[in-house]
Amino acid sequence: MLDVASGDTIETWSVDAGGVDASGKRRSPGGNPLTGPFFVDGAWPGDTLVVKLNRVRLTRDTAVSGDQIVPSALGPRYYRDLKFDEKFSSEWTLDRAAGVARLTKPSEHLKNYTVPLKPMLGCIAVAPPQEMSFRSGYLGAWGGNMDFSQLGEGATVYLPVMHPGALLFLGDGHAAQGDGELTGDALETSMEFSVTVELVKNKTVPQPRAENAQFRMASGIANGLQEALQQATTNLSRWLTDDYKLTPNEVAIVLGTAIQYQIAEVVDPLVHVVAKIDKKALAGLQQ
Amino acid sequence: MLDVASGDTIETWSVDAGGVDASGKRRSPGGNPLTGPFFVDGAWPGDTLVVKLNRVRLTRDTAVSGDQIVPSALGPRYYRDLKFDEKFSSEWTLDRAAGVARLTKPSEHLKNYTVPLKPMLGCIAVAPPQEMSFRSGYLGAWGGNMDFSQLGEGATVYLPVMHPGALLFLGDGHAAQGDGELTGDALETSMEFSVTVELVKNKTVPQPRAENAQFRMASGIANGLQEALQQATTNLSRWLTDDYKLTPNEVAIVLGTAIQYQIAEVVDPLVHVVAKIDKKALAGLQQ
Amino acid sequence: MLDVASGDTIETWSVDAGGVDASGKRRSPGGNPLTGPFFVDGAWPGDTLVVKLNRVRLTRDTAVSGDQIVPSALGPRYYRDLKFDEKFSSEWTLDRAAGVARLTKPSEHLKNYTVPLKPMLGCIAVAPPQEMSFRSGYLGAWGGNMDFSQLGEGATVYLPVMHPGALLFLGDGHAAQGDGELTGDALETSMEFSVTVELVKNKTVPQPRAENAQFRMASGIANGLQEALQQATTNLSRWLTDDYKLTPNEVAIVLGTAIQYQIAEVVDPLVHVVAKIDKKALAGLQQ
Amino acid sequence: MLDVASGDTIETWSVDAGGVDASGKRRSPGGNPLTGPFFVDGAWPGDTLVVKLNRVRLTRDTAVSGDQIVPSALGPRYYRDLKFDEKFSSEWTLDRAAGVARLTKPSEHLKNYTVPLKPMLGCIAVAPPQEMSFRSGYLGAWGGNMDFSQLGEGATVYLPVMHPGALLFLGDGHAAQGDGELTGDALETSMEFSVTVELVKNKTVPQPRAENAQFRMASGIANGLQEALQQATTNLSRWLTDDYKLTPNEVAIVLGTAIQYQIAEVVDPLVHVVAKIDKKALAGLQQ
Repeated sequence: MLDVASGDTIETWSVDAGGVDASGKRRSPGGNPLTGPFFVDGAWPGDTLVVKLNRVRLTRDTAVSGDQIVPSALGPRYYRDLKFDEKFSSEWTLDRAAGVARLTKPSEHLKNYTVPLKPMLGCIAVAPPQEMSFRSGYLGAWGGNMDFSQLGEGATVYLPVMHPGALLFLGDGHAAQGDGELTGDALETSMEFSVTVELVKNKTVPQPRAENAQFRMASGIANGLQEALQQATTNLSRWLTDDYKLTPNEVAIVLGTAIQYQIAEVVDPLVHVVAKIDKKALAGLQQ
Repeated sequence: MLDVASGDTIETWSVDAGGVDASGKRRSPGGNPLTGPFFVDGAWPGDTLVVKLNRVRLTRDTAVSGDQIVPSALGPRYYRDLKFDEKFSSEWTLDRAAGVARLTKPSEHLKNYTVPLKPMLGCIAVAPPQEMSFRSGYLGAWGGNMDFSQLGEGATVYLPVMHPGALLFLGDGHAAQGDGELTGDALETSMEFSVTVELVKNKTVPQPRAENAQFRMASGIANGLQEALQQATTNLSRWLTDDYKLTPNEVAIVLGTAIQYQIAEVVDPLVHVVAKIDKKALAGLQQ
Repeated sequence: MLDVASGDTIETWSVDAGGVDASGKRRSPGGNPLTGPFFVDGAWPGDTLVVKLNRVRLTRDTAVSGDQIVPSALGPRYYRDLKFDEKFSSEWTLDRAAGVARLTKPSEHLKNYTVPLKPMLGCIAVAPPQEMSFRSGYLGAWGGNMDFSQLGEGATVYLPVMHPGALLFLGDGHAAQGDGELTGDALETSMEFSVTVELVKNKTVPQPRAENAQFRMASGIANGLQEALQQATTNLSRWLTDDYKLTPNEVAIVLGTAIQYQIAEVVDPLVHVVAKIDKKALAGLQQ
Repeated sequence: MLDVASGDTIETWSVDAGGVDASGKRRSPGGNPLTGPFFVDGAWPGDTLVVKLNRVRLTRDTAVSGDQIVPSALGPRYYRDLKFDEKFSSEWTLDRAAGVARLTKPSEHLKNYTVPLKPMLGCIAVAPPQEMSFRSGYLGAWGGNMDFSQLGEGATVYLPVMHPGALLFLGDGHAAQGDGELTGDALETSMEFSVTVELVKNKTVPQPRAENAQFRMASGIANGLQEALQQATTNLSRWLTDDYKLTPNEVAIVLGTAIQYQIAEVVDPLVHVVAKIDKKALAGLQQ
């Protein structure tokens, strides 16, 4: 466990979801091994941990993804009739100079298919409540395997501290990911990153929040999409209510005209919907 | 009923959801009154009706919206404690010159709040299957009250023909709408529009599809968000499979890296999720 | 349309879901053809129509059922691997003397498999609201294709009147049905029945209700199981609140200890959950 | 940790959900404290642990329950308007001689309200997979806080062993419980019980199963009711397929005519639906 103070910047790296580092060496068993925990001095239940993702970068030229859509994202009759090629190669070459990923051994139709690189961290977590311990594939109000494509360089994440020291974990780097992480594994690869941690004392968040230059983003992590949407909307409503002193009708006017939802992932033990609002919309609000 | 031929352009207009026209005159009872039906010569069950939205424009300077978030989009305990002002004014002034909407009698916090105008048609429908007849608030594979913010000028919509002549209806203009249409009514207003209708003979679509300059968009209209997501993903998978001859693994690679979901609406009798893909991603596919 | 008065008893019969009558003659196209409508003199929107099922009896010795479980009731990976025999015979012989059904041409494992006969009506409906018209496979607050196994002889059904005359329809007889109607078609057969209609003036029900000698039963018909359970619980709560003047805490005590849910069907356009309470539990309540 | 062998009978007792024992003494903090773990010699991942509930009895004359229905079981608008009495007393007197529970300080309407005593164990669990650790309010394929009213005296439970020794836990006694455990807490009380443990080597179950004199019962524990129903149906299908060598069509015939669902609970971190079949129906199957 590493000890850090509020305001400290952590420069570190993560292996890929299979436990392999930048040099291709296996450093741990697979299953989303994470970097951490970092004990944040002074963090106490009831505080908010602020994690600024200053730099999130690729450290190698290879990644591997899934190549079948999970059944929960397809109609059951359609899924029933799909014939998968179990030998399909889903290894990727990450061309950092060109800023794109390509299949290493592409099939005919995908020879020229490229994916813009957009490195992100699938997992950012504090220790979960009580004495519980989850596989790093889990997620919850404490963050975890959120698999949200906006959590890359330039984003700031807010997590509710649930134990002394918060116990920050990070990892599960993706070179790129579509909404929902439909293939179960995105472009899984190793990463290096710099994060600055800060504390907001005596103020908590009901579920994770994040922001970047363009958006405020409020997570709803729940058992199903409807409940996740409810929690995301509620989380964003509370945020605007707190910061701008809006009434329920005013929140309704703002969200009714400006909310955007992003379905972050539908493949983990819980699903994740994010309610976003453009900061340009917020610029017109009187505090 | 108006008779049109494939290739014809229809220049027409719609009242707002309350039945009021551009001049402020009530022309019909409220509840999403639509313009149509248009009988398309030669349209037959099993064909696809193509509706090109050449022009979708506002015809007046006023709109009215809801001002409470529907309970299905909020956590029940949070909703329970909200105190709504039943006299809140949600009348809007549409400033077409500046391209924004403003509350006509804004509350203090919203005095400078503006919403970019982005006119769209909430309802585009063919007649539903069999001898069924639904309120125009309904939606289904036949389109209807889809409330999808991308169905504005420049979009092309594909609907499955279910009756001879297709029987096209259009209306429910929104000057702007956030994802989900959370307040039940978006910025409801009258509209004028020009649409060109075409037929694709002997080829149908499982649910509505649309495209614009940037995206291909496949609808999933279903009882709940999970099933709507499944149907949207399936609809887009089928579309790419048909047009690019992709295998199931190739579709998984493309959607796993490039799919975007938009939650069109969560307030109507069925919910609507759209699976989108940027045409730039498709440009790399070999047909 | 037949005209009846409150208090009248209707003696009539229904064809099976395929349109075939007691003598084996096809009388109408398939798809749940119904008997009716019966115009109930004096019925007006806001009233409740009471339908007492005095007698519900089989009229022939044959039925036919589905023989595949619908995919929505099975895990998608399990469903994917099932190999169905498309030539399996699911014709049934109804042995009214012995009170059981047997497969007419049973497979080896099912040679001695019997199902107790328990005739019921799958569809009991008033006309739906507004000018809407649904296939008789639909259901809603107005009843319809409820597929609830308790709606047989001895049950009384309460439906909200939505049009002058109520417009009662009945049919879709099942000789027996498991919970959920998992095979889409239960033991579909023709039926004869006697029902007495009555009106409760100026009092409506939010969704269908029923009772028999043992239970009060409150329907929740909705888009998904969670919402159906919510509506069923709410419907039963309202019923007990009205009849016994219970407070919310008292309702919670009663339902928390005595509620029973039955999943009536999961195969129709909406799903149906019933909240039941034994009349023995109600006997202890002070009105 | 107590060491037991296959075939051993464990005679033990449990505190109530609040940690209070038969004599009224607090023995542990609240939150479903459990009795165990019991290390079963020879139990190994891939085996099935059989837990026979020989005796499940009350040990005192008091219980306490919740007195508000959880919001997830009610329509949001109905829930919004309920006025709860926060001082309502939901203490119960357990009259073991008469076999009923009564409120200790009943409100007027509930003075004569009684609930038949039917003692059950809310929690029966083996250790969850991997190195995970959950609060005892959780549940999963490993059992846990299943809150299923049929798990009382005379029932046999089957759980998949996930760790050497299985690590059996039991507790969370309820004197009685309605479907769904709608008030969050059923009639929580202390219990004494005798269970016999056995092993089925090299054979696992996908989710918990149980049986008693009348029923075979297959659990579906999942994020939502639809998925729980799917898993319960699949679990029961697999059981019948294994034991009776039925084909998918034969399973469909049997479940389509004889399945019964019970909604065990809707208030815990996951929901629990049970698919049941009467042993009388199974008696007609040829193995």
